[in-house]
Amino acid sequence: MSSYGKAFTLWRESAKRKEGDAWSAYTHHSFVESLRDGSLPREAYVHYLIQDYVFLVHFSRAWALAVVKSETLSEMKLASTTVNSLVNLEMQHHVDICAKYGISEQELFSATEEPENLSYTRYVLDAGLSGDLVDLLAALAPCIFGYGEIGKRLADNLSPDNPYAEWIKTYASDEYQQVCNEAGQLIDEALERRIGSDFQASPRWERLTDRFVMAAKLEAGFWSMSLRT
Amino acid sequence: MSSYGKAFTLWRESAKRKEGDAWSAYTHHSFVESLRDGSLPREAYVHYLIQDYVFLVHFSRAWALAVVKSETLSEMKLASTTVNSLVNLEMQHHVDICAKYGISEQELFSATEEPENLSYTRYVLDAGLSGDLVDLLAALAPCIFGYGEIGKRLADNLSPDNPYAEWIKTYASDEYQQVCNEAGQLIDEALERRIGSDFQASPRWERLTDRFVMAAKLEAGFWSMSLRT
Amino acid sequence: MSSYGKAFTLWRESAKRKEGDAWSAYTHHSFVESLRDGSLPREAYVHYLIQDYVFLVHFSRAWALAVVKSETLSEMKLASTTVNSLVNLEMQHHVDICAKYGISEQELFSATEEPENLSYTRYVLDAGLSGDLVDLLAALAPCIFGYGEIGKRLADNLSPDNPYAEWIKTYASDEYQQVCNEAGQLIDEALERRIGSDFQASPRWERLTDRFVMAAKLEAGFWSMSLRT
Amino acid sequence: MSSYGKAFTLWRESAKRKEGDAWSAYTHHSFVESLRDGSLPREAYVHYLIQDYVFLVHFSRAWALAVVKSETLSEMKLASTTVNSLVNLEMQHHVDICAKYGISEQELFSATEEPENLSYTRYVLDAGLSGDLVDLLAALAPCIFGYGEIGKRLADNLSPDNPYAEWIKTYASDEYQQVCNEAGQLIDEALERRIGSDFQASPRWERLTDRFVMAAKLEAGFWSMSLRT
Repeated sequence: MSSYGKAFTLWRESAKRKEGDAWSAYTHHSFVESLRDGSLPREAYVHYLIQDYVFLVHFSRAWALAVVKSETLSEMKLASTTVNSLVNLEMQHHVDICAKYGISEQELFSATEEPENLSYTRYVLDAGLSGDLVDLLAALAPCIFGYGEIGKRLADNLSPDNPYAEWIKTYASDEYQQVCNEAGQLIDEALERRIGSDFQASPRWERLTDRFVMAAKLEAGFWSMSLRT
Repeated sequence: MSSYGKAFTLWRESAKRKEGDAWSAYTHHSFVESLRDGSLPREAYVHYLIQDYVFLVHFSRAWALAVVKSETLSEMKLASTTVNSLVNLEMQHHVDICAKYGISEQELFSATEEPENLSYTRYVLDAGLSGDLVDLLAALAPCIFGYGEIGKRLADNLSPDNPYAEWIKTYASDEYQQVCNEAGQLIDEALERRIGSDFQASPRWERLTDRFVMAAKLEAGFWSMSLRT
Repeated sequence: MSSYGKAFTLWRESAKRKEGDAWSAYTHHSFVESLRDGSLPREAYVHYLIQDYVFLVHFSRAWALAVVKSETLSEMKLASTTVNSLVNLEMQHHVDICAKYGISEQELFSATEEPENLSYTRYVLDAGLSGDLVDLLAALAPCIFGYGEIGKRLADNLSPDNPYAEWIKTYASDEYQQVCNEAGQLIDEALERRIGSDFQASPRWERLTDRFVMAAKLEAGFWSMSLRT
Repeated sequence: MSSYGKAFTLWRESAKRKEGDAWSAYTHHSFVESLRDGSLPREAYVHYLIQDYVFLVHFSRAWALAVVKSETLSEMKLASTTVNSLVNLEMQHHVDICAKYGISEQELFSATEEPENLSYTRYVLDAGLSGDLVDLLAALAPCIFGYGEIGKRLADNLSPDNPYAEWIKTYASDEYQQVCNEAGQLIDEALERRIGSDFQASPRWERLTDRFVMAAKLEAGFWSMSLRT
């Protein structure tokens, strides 16, 4: 079992079996591979950074919806801490990185969201509106854990000259890996609370898996959009 | 088992065991008993009618939220039909009844909601926002089925002189009883789909029951409020 | 001013000036033009029909959210009637059309939503979650009125041999045009109620226009997706 | 104008003119006056503390909904910071105070919400679901600012022997007054952004004021409930 928890391990396996391996299509996307070998055009990276800033705004909104849908103090605490980190630290961190690439905060703010960007975050938000906390978390999961998995893999044999080393180290860091471990535990506990310890045997499980797979597919679409410059 | 379904039968039994019989406190409330023997002061009935009109507005919004949260065509159809009946028929029916009591549509519209009125409908709406369709339905259930049960009981030995005969016959009618039967089936199927056929054994069940009991308590509060003239 | 109302007239003009005429990119998309001259490949039409069924499910949910967000009886009535028509008539109508093309109801139900399909409906639903009724309606508007405008235009000089004549006549029909007129009135009144009669001078107006333009762009994406077979 | 901002100043004035001075009925409620002179029975205070813990859970959910409904970075930041403070600091602070009164964290968690408690928070949450950010904030406002006003007033001539001195000092503190000032600024800016600088002249204003007045009334109900031991 992955240190990211039982539900993720099962969802990941399913996503590898579905739609011609939807998990690898996301985590080994050519955008990711070109981050790995440093060949990603700077223009595509800048496109990605701008869109990712707008993504963070709506990703934060989705985590705030997780607070609205929490039933226990531990659910509320983890979701609240995540919202606060995203809005008050991560978004600022993003502004700082973008400044290095000559993108002003104003440019980030006035950026028009690309359809492949909004499709993922709005899908997540509607998962929360239509279902309960675990529907929302199943849709959030590919983003959280995919970045963790990508970060770890790309940090292996990372060339010191890789222009994207900072990005890679961020998601490979102990800090981000800890975020993934805690999110994995939150998801497992939320499933146990709402369905039972044998949650993968419930009639909901297949639909939750479908949400995870769709979300992974939408994440792959985000990479493809980023390459389009 | 009641013709209103398995979940209702179980919830009703629990509500009878909790908070000194929360189910009877609602369905045998002194407001209800005075409808039964016709002793309810006209002033209290008028107060009830006005507040019940405002209640219908928010009850319709809650059924509309059930459409938003539906996962199957049969869930969507029943919820949509209910919204349409409530907004386009029931609310007009209410305007007609109120006209007989000298209450104008304008008076209904400009009525200020009483706290005990809004507490129930907003509790239902938030059950939907925070949880999934069955959380919403568990909170809606006491209203649907309680009125059905009250209607049937009060229609037995109904005096032809009872000034509230029309109200009683509405909820005792085959048409309303059919609404209850269909809602009961919807709830049972929604639970089976989301939890499994043995839904009463799931960890969620106690919390769903608590929602039902709280909603029954809030319904009793609505009757008490109506008596306060 | 269009018979679809003042807000639509203004939004449409803005959409024609933005992103290289986003309105024509949607309403004169090559998918639409090939419906007009009958050259659309049957395979693309079948693809469209299947995705449009899934679209209707979420479009109905968005109109149900409009009921949840209504403040007046006339808002509630129109939104409720629309939900009911969509779920209990339009979706069945769709099943009937699809049957002619050899697509079973089961196939419609088990269809996987394409990203360009879900991006529009989830954008609309989130407009409702994040804003008020007019934010939701601004995002719904391009679908309602665009189909009306396309229907009217394509019905002119319609060849009796056009294999898509039934589709064209549906949206050119007095019945559908009446739906557009009523929706236009609903939107104008909802704007006046929430902002004032000079609503186009308010600070919100530009953001509402942006929503309309984005939604038109997402509708164009739906046509492009339909052509991808 | 109060340092809590223009909107609050206007809403407060209206609430003083409505329903026999709804503002004073809340801020000078006998519960408050008995905190001021120290005569509040310990039993009522303990009842209040337990219910207020449950209140904080749902109040935090309402602020999280404000994040979901934010349109600007400054709106998101203030709302996120507030959620985080409430969940990760204020709720723990409450557990600490309650411990001094012999109430265990377990007791706080298993407490059954009183109807007058849930009516306020669910009214706020539904204001957010049905409207936009300013509808939500208008309903939140009486809680934020009322406590600030009560704290300041009760801190004047506070007897060192007052058993409720700690509670009073918390809300009279510079820290809490700063929270009120910032929330007031957030509300004024959110209104200007959505309606315009002359927001009190808009057709929405009366309805926003009605929300504020209703929320103030529900807060008064919370005090009355707390006295019922």
